[in-house]
Amino acid sequence: MFGEIYDVIVVGGGHAGAEATAAAANMGSKTLLVTMNLQTIGQMSCNPAMGGIAKGQIVREIDALGGYSGIITDKSAIQFKMLNKSKGPAMWSPRAQSDRMRFAEEWRLALERTPNVDFYQEMVTGLLLEKNKVVGVKTSLGIEIRGKSVILTNGTFLNGLIHIGEKQFGGGRAGEKAATGITEQLVDLGFDSGRMKTGTPPRVDGRSLDYSKMIPQPGDDKPEKFSYLNTPVLKKQRDCHMTHTSALVHDLLREGFDRSPMFNGRIKSIGPRYCPSIEDKINRFADKESHQMFIEPEGWDTVEIYVNGFSTSLPEDVQFKALRSVKGFENVKFFRPGYAIEYDYFPPTQLKHTLETKLIENLYFAGQINGTTGYEEAASQGLMAGINAHLKINEKDTFTLQRDEAYIGVLIDDLITKGTEEPYRMFTSRAEYRTLLRQDNADLRLTPKGYELGLAKEDRLKRMEEKLEKSEAFVSFFKNTSVLPEQMNPILEEVQSAPIKQSDKMFKLFSRPKVTMQHMLTLESVSEFVSSNNLDNEVLEQAEIQVKYSGYIEKEKVNADKLNRLESVKIPDNFDYKKLKSLSFEAREKLSAIKPVTISQASRISGVTPSDISVLLVYLGR
Amino acid sequence: MFGEIYDVIVVGGGHAGAEATAAAANMGSKTLLVTMNLQTIGQMSCNPAMGGIAKGQIVREIDALGGYSGIITDKSAIQFKMLNKSKGPAMWSPRAQSDRMRFAEEWRLALERTPNVDFYQEMVTGLLLEKNKVVGVKTSLGIEIRGKSVILTNGTFLNGLIHIGEKQFGGGRAGEKAATGITEQLVDLGFDSGRMKTGTPPRVDGRSLDYSKMIPQPGDDKPEKFSYLNTPVLKKQRDCHMTHTSALVHDLLREGFDRSPMFNGRIKSIGPRYCPSIEDKINRFADKESHQMFIEPEGWDTVEIYVNGFSTSLPEDVQFKALRSVKGFENVKFFRPGYAIEYDYFPPTQLKHTLETKLIENLYFAGQINGTTGYEEAASQGLMAGINAHLKINEKDTFTLQRDEAYIGVLIDDLITKGTEEPYRMFTSRAEYRTLLRQDNADLRLTPKGYELGLAKEDRLKRMEEKLEKSEAFVSFFKNTSVLPEQMNPILEEVQSAPIKQSDKMFKLFSRPKVTMQHMLTLESVSEFVSSNNLDNEVLEQAEIQVKYSGYIEKEKVNADKLNRLESVKIPDNFDYKKLKSLSFEAREKLSAIKPVTISQASRISGVTPSDISVLLVYLGR
Repeated sequence: MFGEIYDVIVVGGGHAGAEATAAAANMGSKTLLVTMNLQTIGQMSCNPAMGGIAKGQIVREIDALGGYSGIITDKSAIQFKMLNKSKGPAMWSPRAQSDRMRFAEEWRLALERTPNVDFYQEMVTGLLLEKNKVVGVKTSLGIEIRGKSVILTNGTFLNGLIHIGEKQFGGGRAGEKAATGITEQLVDLGFDSGRMKTGTPPRVDGRSLDYSKMIPQPGDDKPEKFSYLNTPVLKKQRDCHMTHTSALVHDLLREGFDRSPMFNGRIKSIGPRYCPSIEDKINRFADKESHQMFIEPEGWDTVEIYVNGFSTSLPEDVQFKALRSVKGFENVKFFRPGYAIEYDYFPPTQLKHTLETKLIENLYFAGQINGTTGYEEAASQGLMAGINAHLKINEKDTFTLQRDEAYIGVLIDDLITKGTEEPYRMFTSRAEYRTLLRQDNADLRLTPKGYELGLAKEDRLKRMEEKLEKSEAFVSFFKNTSVLPEQMNPILEEVQSAPIKQSDKMFKLFSRPKVTMQHMLTLESVSEFVSSNNLDNEVLEQAEIQVKYSGYIEKEKVNADKLNRLESVKIPDNFDYKKLKSLSFEAREKLSAIKPVTISQASRISGVTPSDISVLLVYLGR
Repeated sequence: MFGEIYDVIVVGGGHAGAEATAAAANMGSKTLLVTMNLQTIGQMSCNPAMGGIAKGQIVREIDALGGYSGIITDKSAIQFKMLNKSKGPAMWSPRAQSDRMRFAEEWRLALERTPNVDFYQEMVTGLLLEKNKVVGVKTSLGIEIRGKSVILTNGTFLNGLIHIGEKQFGGGRAGEKAATGITEQLVDLGFDSGRMKTGTPPRVDGRSLDYSKMIPQPGDDKPEKFSYLNTPVLKKQRDCHMTHTSALVHDLLREGFDRSPMFNGRIKSIGPRYCPSIEDKINRFADKESHQMFIEPEGWDTVEIYVNGFSTSLPEDVQFKALRSVKGFENVKFFRPGYAIEYDYFPPTQLKHTLETKLIENLYFAGQINGTTGYEEAASQGLMAGINAHLKINEKDTFTLQRDEAYIGVLIDDLITKGTEEPYRMFTSRAEYRTLLRQDNADLRLTPKGYELGLAKEDRLKRMEEKLEKSEAFVSFFKNTSVLPEQMNPILEEVQSAPIKQSDKMFKLFSRPKVTMQHMLTLESVSEFVSSNNLDNEVLEQAEIQVKYSGYIEKEKVNADKLNRLESVKIPDNFDYKKLKSLSFEAREKLSAIKPVTISQASRISGVTPSDISVLLVYLGR
């Protein structure tokens, strides 16, 4: 039935699988997406939103490289916010609410329109292997599909077990079947596997809520968007709302704690620390009398509501009773209760930087199977796995991103170097050089790389180059143009900065705290430059950041370069740490297990000390 | 959790469940729709089309009464055809291809916008009973939801078992779980249950087809629509295509017959005779070397294709190999193979005309659970069950339709009187009075009834009344207006009809064969009447039918009236046939089992002879 040999077979059609499919196919690989249900491609299984702090940066990085998540989000968004706009630009984080149905439909159609993508609906139950190489997959019907590489993106489906109170049943998502067979085979092959847990809140009927008791959370007045391409900007938006739990709500929830699978030992695996269930929050922060809840519509027209902040696996009657005591929820009606789900994952230290497994050649893992949580984390891994699967079968160099190049680089390096024992979520604090890894410059950082890969197309590169050229020219203009005291001093006075007595370069004055681009634009020569060069908001923003944060940016670049020097010290593939008796016992163990490819990576492994690094450097002749 | 007592609980969100929900709620019942997956409401599980011969009439009947199927179809249509337009108006049958995703989305949104509808996602595993009354349902979580009445619309989900070649696995639909618990409980309560089988063809990738080798099947030049309300008319349409099987294709399929669950005895239940699998067609019509196949797109934008005419449960490799030999399918790629599914049904002779079960009060069945096949058949049963559930709990008279009033009446009367041992599909030939049951007059027949029920709204009644008034006035005009030979004879000459020598009434001349409304409109007085009275196409069509078919219509009305006289002879509720020794043994058995409510119904039971009817009439004092 499948006579041809695919270049890449992607198992699973969630955020990771969809991006992997798009990337491999766009680079020219004959790609097959196999999923248990072709109607659930690109499902938002949990909250109907993309982006947020650090996650929004990841979406822009995916977009800059030529992935689809940003475009799909823009097309399906119902609200957009730039978070942290009051802080420095390293913290600015785009976030959008999406129409869940539209999001999935746009993904499906985008993949259908992508050349080289085939689709097949069935459960994959095993891998086809030849020695230590994967050569395809086997389905529940017993069909063998040959492929040069396979990317597993099984999400929460591998032996998925759903918990609500004292009840539990198999399933990969509410109302859907679990997937079986793959874990067992991988364990037989020598993989370590573990169990993780995640959860989701109840979905409720928006018509049963009293929004007058909640605080509206509108989108930005001037909504931006994710993609650097010409996707639509929102003309209207739908509000979210905020409410909060109370001591009473907590008491009502506590009444169910003895029946909670989290607390009675039925769930043993660890859930996402930074996306905890409401019972977990109450338990861990016993002194807090209230937690925020965000009420998020699931689309433009639907009345279905996602109750953000109320993830729970307490018995459904406890969920219901407690939720009815939340302000605005007095008459709430449930569409479905919240639940927890346990699923298999594979500790990601078993992977290379390319997301290829160390044990089985041409087998890649991406998304929750690697112990991460979050659509964005999953999508970016899918993208990188798709790229590398394509490169490898074409005998080209691997493509990885450094920690100073992208959050995606931080994410994958963290995963494969440190592993994770709880669902891994990205934060800005995980990045050493977050001033470099901004949402505004993801295109400048990554689009040239994406273009070189053949993933980002000409139009995307051109847009980026134009933005770069124009913003550099604008910065040069500020560096080279002087301003008279009588022109500049009114501005300085307004921001309570010392006046100048003689002409000075604009760059210097613009660098002063509180002086903004808006101020500079009041100067005739600046506004003339803007209009004669036809500079848009994106360029203005980029120039402003380059002027005002040049100090920080330069400093981080210097630090990053130091790191990169260590990065350039490669460790040979099958380096035998056991022989180096001067390494600590722990270092020998961990280095042997993780097999870092550079000294820099070795230095990030917990338990590997600076003196271990010195020993290595000496041995490697440095 | 569910504190309130619902008026009506509908189990299942397919065509039957969705119409039942809408009807009960629109009449004022507090209604709960419980389904295993709220994201699959209104799924087109099989072909992406509504209507067709006799089925299209049913959709218009549903619409005329105030149901939603016609509106949803119009909003999601991608192609419209009036079938049999070359035959008499009794045969005209509207049919539309739908965008499958849009269809489901429109259903979901329509139900969300309907007041009195609540939603809940979970599997219903049992009924709550008090003596012989249903008082609610129980879910897989053990939640008890109280309701005054329950409508079961489980489709193919009750113990659904999917077959492909020699493989079989539980499931209600490809990629979805089966439902368990309900059959077992009903059987314990004394219900007879059986197994039926249905099937679906492969879905394929439209990009892999060569349409240049097929015959385009465009929609009508002037597409009409289903709803009598002001729904949109298609401005553009998407083509279907036709191709056909060949001797070679049949040979290739035959190679898999030994592994076919249909032929090796694994599937014992009976499938739909008039929607047979391709292997069934080959087997039954061994001399036919070719069968038609219709290639139907699943939506506006998707590349997914439904291969109408190629339903099969042969092994997937056999399906694939054979399909590749069909003209235009040489390079076909599968999205998923076809399959057969066996599921539980309950012989519908266990129901009253209201679709309430005879055994358990306030429990209704609608759709495939009653042994029918087809979206339209299911939807109309759902509508009738919803209406009657509402009426009963409000202690109002039941609402049933006679065989001369609606196809829906024929359908339900056939089901409960004759039962069915194979999936029941509607045909025009099942109706004794099909000249009365036309698609053009469903509003005239049923909207006044729908309005009286409180289901059809004022605007719908007004549209109908206006149409009726105007078309009657137009017919009167033809009856009362004479035309001169010099005006009429050119028309008569054109259609080769004898010329007239003196003025005659237009009605008489218009009644002649081949004289059409288009001809009559060339007469100045007619066109003046049309424009001064602002008559639209619908009125013109109605008047034309009333003039040209008045003879047939009158004759059928007379016959129907005879039937209705027998219909008026009611049989008491617990009539004891056993006492009537002059009835044949078979008649006593069957009458006792089916408990007909009228002499007319009794006469339609197979095995009940005219002499049995005479005995009954005598006994009942006629």
